[in-house]
Amino acid sequence: MVEYQRFGKMNIFTAADLDQMPRFTRANLINCLTGIKPAILIGTTSVDGVSNLGLFSSVFHLGADPALIGFVQRPLTTYSHTYKNILASGVYTMNHVTSDRIAEAHHTSAKFGDNESEFAACGFGEKFIAPFNAPFVGGSPVQFGLRFVREIFIPENDTRLIIGSVEIISVDERVLSEDGNLELDRAESVGVAGLESYYALRRLAKFGYAKPGVRPVDDPK
Amino acid sequence: MVEYQRFGKMNIFTAADLDQMPRFTRANLINCLTGIKPAILIGTTSVDGVSNLGLFSSVFHLGADPALIGFVQRPLTTYSHTYKNILASGVYTMNHVTSDRIAEAHHTSAKFGDNESEFAACGFGEKFIAPFNAPFVGGSPVQFGLRFVREIFIPENDTRLIIGSVEIISVDERVLSEDGNLELDRAESVGVAGLESYYALRRLAKFGYAKPGVRPVDDPK
Repeated sequence: MVEYQRFGKMNIFTAADLDQMPRFTRANLINCLTGIKPAILIGTTSVDGVSNLGLFSSVFHLGADPALIGFVQRPLTTYSHTYKNILASGVYTMNHVTSDRIAEAHHTSAKFGDNESEFAACGFGEKFIAPFNAPFVGGSPVQFGLRFVREIFIPENDTRLIIGSVEIISVDERVLSEDGNLELDRAESVGVAGLESYYALRRLAKFGYAKPGVRPVDDPK
Repeated sequence: MVEYQRFGKMNIFTAADLDQMPRFTRANLINCLTGIKPAILIGTTSVDGVSNLGLFSSVFHLGADPALIGFVQRPLTTYSHTYKNILASGVYTMNHVTSDRIAEAHHTSAKFGDNESEFAACGFGEKFIAPFNAPFVGGSPVQFGLRFVREIFIPENDTRLIIGSVEIISVDERVLSEDGNLELDRAESVGVAGLESYYALRRLAKFGYAKPGVRPVDDPK
């Protein structure tokens, strides 16, 4: 790495510097760039009836009306059970990870076999909300069921964007505000940085709709 | 809203319930579902040389090698300066929002005119890192420059996924770990929930590569 430029305490890395970095150092740095990411457990069931639970941090809001949510599927391997199950069954659940279950949630990212359920292996309970036909994580305070809409293949790196529409939502009543907002600190939902670091959340402020020339002020309602 | 089913303190909403919700309540709820999101300021320059700064929370890691990052562009309006500038110039910056600047960052989401720079109007300094030709946010501890790769139009809701490749990274040396990870709490980077709530981050644990049958343990290194 050549520090060819420096501003105060800033370290600069060019694309050439990145190429010279050890592979895992580079992967950590790039994975951390986008800042905090949500820790979401995706629940599915295979055609053979084996449930699956996988941890994803690249989940993103795509739109509220229609309610669409996306996530990034890494290049496929024999362990891509979540992807296979979503395509076969058409349905999946997303469940917030809470601060008391981060070790168990991280454990789901290990390479379990086709006939092993991460629910049982990592200590999560399966919950069903009829008539939605994919398993939720018992005890997760924010969870929702999605129907697969389509996938978009990204040829640059063999990843896929998986888009789903929200069919059902289940939220702890202590977390839901009257205006529809979810209080993520009351939910004890966590965030992820990079591949392995988990963060708790503390609300700083809530601002209204921004207007030019008016500095936003905290409205704790 | 019909609470046709309830598990302990969980509130259930079906698609039919969502349709009956007031528009803003529904928008808040759906926007909060994916949990914590990064607060990222995107810096660009127009063909007329006017700089622009916009707040985005739908930024996602797409891959480390090649280093690709995506974000969701809402349906276009006359105020979509970030999008227009990215397509015209081919380059843009992403900058972490820190806890001391959340009001100013939120202010950038107001509808400023074509000839107004949110840098000046909201109180952010412009910084350039030659030879990269888009404006960074002075003082942001994690910032990187991207080159536009392509856009993917999502016909379901008229949004666009904007994909860029990382060309340059500038990181405060106090935030960068030896293994390449970024300490987001030392950076004082913040997260966003929904459209208007900002959260501070506190690191809980760092786990290694997960293995089946081995409960992950915190490794604070």
